[in-house]
Amino acid sequence: MLSPAHLAFAAALLLVLRPPASAVTARPIVAGKPAPSEAAATARWLAAQNTWGVLSTISSDLGGAPFGNVVSYSDGAPGEGHGIPYFYLTTLDPTARDALQDERTSFTLSEFPIGTCGKIDPENPTCAKLTLSGKLKLVDFQSSEADFAKSALFTKHPEMKGWPKNHNFRIFKLEIENIFLIDWFGGPKPISPSEYLEYGREQGSAMFS
Amino acid sequence: MLSPAHLAFAAALLLVLRPPASAVTARPIVAGKPAPSEAAATARWLAAQNTWGVLSTISSDLGGAPFGNVVSYSDGAPGEGHGIPYFYLTTLDPTARDALQDERTSFTLSEFPIGTCGKIDPENPTCAKLTLSGKLKLVDFQSSEADFAKSALFTKHPEMKGWPKNHNFRIFKLEIENIFLIDWFGGPKPISPSEYLEYGREQGSAMFS
Repeated sequence: MLSPAHLAFAAALLLVLRPPASAVTARPIVAGKPAPSEAAATARWLAAQNTWGVLSTISSDLGGAPFGNVVSYSDGAPGEGHGIPYFYLTTLDPTARDALQDERTSFTLSEFPIGTCGKIDPENPTCAKLTLSGKLKLVDFQSSEADFAKSALFTKHPEMKGWPKNHNFRIFKLEIENIFLIDWFGGPKPISPSEYLEYGREQGSAMFS
Repeated sequence: MLSPAHLAFAAALLLVLRPPASAVTARPIVAGKPAPSEAAATARWLAAQNTWGVLSTISSDLGGAPFGNVVSYSDGAPGEGHGIPYFYLTTLDPTARDALQDERTSFTLSEFPIGTCGKIDPENPTCAKLTLSGKLKLVDFQSSEADFAKSALFTKHPEMKGWPKNHNFRIFKLEIENIFLIDWFGGPKPISPSEYLEYGREQGSAMFS
């Protein structure tokens, strides 16, 4: 049986062995999946690794029912994800029209298409799922943020540059208000938008907030 | 220049060369993607080939905002898709709880994870996207439909059989009311739920309606 002195020593050892919080949040975003306990890191990794997801809006065509649509996105150039998803959407499509009437939107990503779930079922909680909810906002095409978004989008989706000019493509971004992440057993992980957005910021990467 | 007689001959030849409508609708669901002009066939192929998608509900946790969630599904055993997506959802998860309060749901699938889009961008209209909208209904666990659904789900998602009994998994199905398919340039293809559900029925496969 351990004495109180042993326990105090073990606790001190644990503190030494466990990296400080700042080191965890500064963990670089790399191809390998973060540990399930690192919720913000896992969410940012999912957002950085994926190239497409489903944007859900309140449908004006369907009388207020939800409507999910497959879209491409980017949160930064490859290896430089900043967490905010940017989209290049045409107002010929219902999703952009819906968002211009009602900004409430969720954006859903799965780890499955990245390939790292292996044989695990896409619905298994250890195959990570991320839903970012908030407001889908039009980005002023002449702003520096639009320049960043275009670079982020066009490096990951080169064919977008050639999409028809007369189709009224616009840049949108999701202003994140709620985060739903499942990356292990035990239910969704609580992550605040600031925890998510500030992850890795110490590495000196610029962000739009 | 062609005479009216030539034109009549050409029209007759076209009628001979083009398969009759019944032959088109009876086209078997196989691994190869149907032609873009065959909208119902393409939608059914997408539903049969995929194993997961995003279910969007009206979120009670988020005050009526849309909420998309990654889920597995099955519309039949491999090679025997019937078009109706069945789900195995736990009421520990917000999607099932949302649907029990407000049935309005959409289910969104992409061709991209099937692998047949190749280098085409996931948002390119020729990489097909399908959104089935309607009502998410609980299926009575003791019914013959539940037996069909369990067989459909467990053959495509074998690990589901071992998921914890105390997690209150229930079988749901989407009653389809609206179909949004993009599989080529020129906007969404109009498909009615009956065109979608009746596709391939001549082949003698049983369906739950």
